[in-house]
Amino acid sequence: MAGKVKTKDRIKAAALGLFNNEGEREVSAVDIANVIGISPGNLHYHYSGKGLIIEALFAEFETEIRQVLSAPVNKPLAVEDNWIFLYIVFEEIWDFRFFYGNMSSILARIPDLAAPFSRILALKQRTFDTLLARLEGDGHLVFREGEREALSERLAMHFTYWLQYNALRAPTASPKSIINHGVYSALMQVTPYWGDNAQSYAALLSEFLDAQG
Amino acid sequence: MAGKVKTKDRIKAAALGLFNNEGEREVSAVDIANVIGISPGNLHYHYSGKGLIIEALFAEFETEIRQVLSAPVNKPLAVEDNWIFLYIVFEEIWDFRFFYGNMSSILARIPDLAAPFSRILALKQRTFDTLLARLEGDGHLVFREGEREALSERLAMHFTYWLQYNALRAPTASPKSIINHGVYSALMQVTPYWGDNAQSYAALLSEFLDAQG
Repeated sequence: MAGKVKTKDRIKAAALGLFNNEGEREVSAVDIANVIGISPGNLHYHYSGKGLIIEALFAEFETEIRQVLSAPVNKPLAVEDNWIFLYIVFEEIWDFRFFYGNMSSILARIPDLAAPFSRILALKQRTFDTLLARLEGDGHLVFREGEREALSERLAMHFTYWLQYNALRAPTASPKSIINHGVYSALMQVTPYWGDNAQSYAALLSEFLDAQG
Repeated sequence: MAGKVKTKDRIKAAALGLFNNEGEREVSAVDIANVIGISPGNLHYHYSGKGLIIEALFAEFETEIRQVLSAPVNKPLAVEDNWIFLYIVFEEIWDFRFFYGNMSSILARIPDLAAPFSRILALKQRTFDTLLARLEGDGHLVFREGEREALSERLAMHFTYWLQYNALRAPTASPKSIINHGVYSALMQVTPYWGDNAQSYAALLSEFLDAQG
């Protein structure tokens, strides 16, 4: 039984690497079996189709992103940890980029993933709203009616489509610059709401820009 | 020759309707031929594959969206026409929604569309930047350094992924509410930059909300 679990883990790890780096579309179950040196029959015994491997990878992603998104809800972040948090969310998404880069196609083939993915988006939006509400409560940010909710939704959408948008607009950008630009663009959505007590928040953005220099 | 052109137009119109309403994935060339009552061989004579029909539809979309996006660059909008303009852009996108809802899959199958689509996104961003720069020049909007460019990019991205995002988050929403919510969400990205001279702009949003009520 331990051996079986191990093979499943090896299949998932190999599939994730191939999907992310070569494109999920280009990779067959046989390719995955070849990479880890097992027979296609053995792979089929563990996962009877590429779709099931994708579902297993999605389940792992869901567990991880839920942990990441719940952390600052359960335990408030220091102001200066907010931008680190944005990096962590982006890095989770980056690790699962084959899905984010091609989600409409994958969701059309595996419709059962649409509901859990939609719930992840809702959680992402709630987490951002919690963070923004705390910054508002502490006087760092000031919102007119409806603006905080709109910003939370926009940030959730920003994180969801940033990789697809960049694949079109900056197809030769490095992973580091894609993630940096994505975090910068998220932070720039928050700057117009700075209140009088936003010095520490402004220092964050300045620190961020210096680090890019 | 006139007859041939007419058949091509009928094929495109039928394909666009089927793709938009039933999903491009679900529709074959034979389905399209059936709808307009021609033989699959006749359709094949005009377009030797579904991909070529998609390319022809894309070319029409490109012509139309370029006209729409260039109009306010060539001839400045009155302040109160800015939100009407957002509706017009969204309605163009809505007319071509089979592509917007599934673009990563279509671009993977027809890679030649990626470069022209990326240029449309760049034009969209430039148009929004032109509109925002005029509103800034007239004192309606006030931007800190970098904010106007970031907002232009964000609006271009917002329009590009709004349909996909809504398909996940609000799968049962009506077309009217999807477009209204998309325009509202775009306007809400601009409100935090209102300057002292923004009364007319604030009136726009209020008029918009009243119209939804």
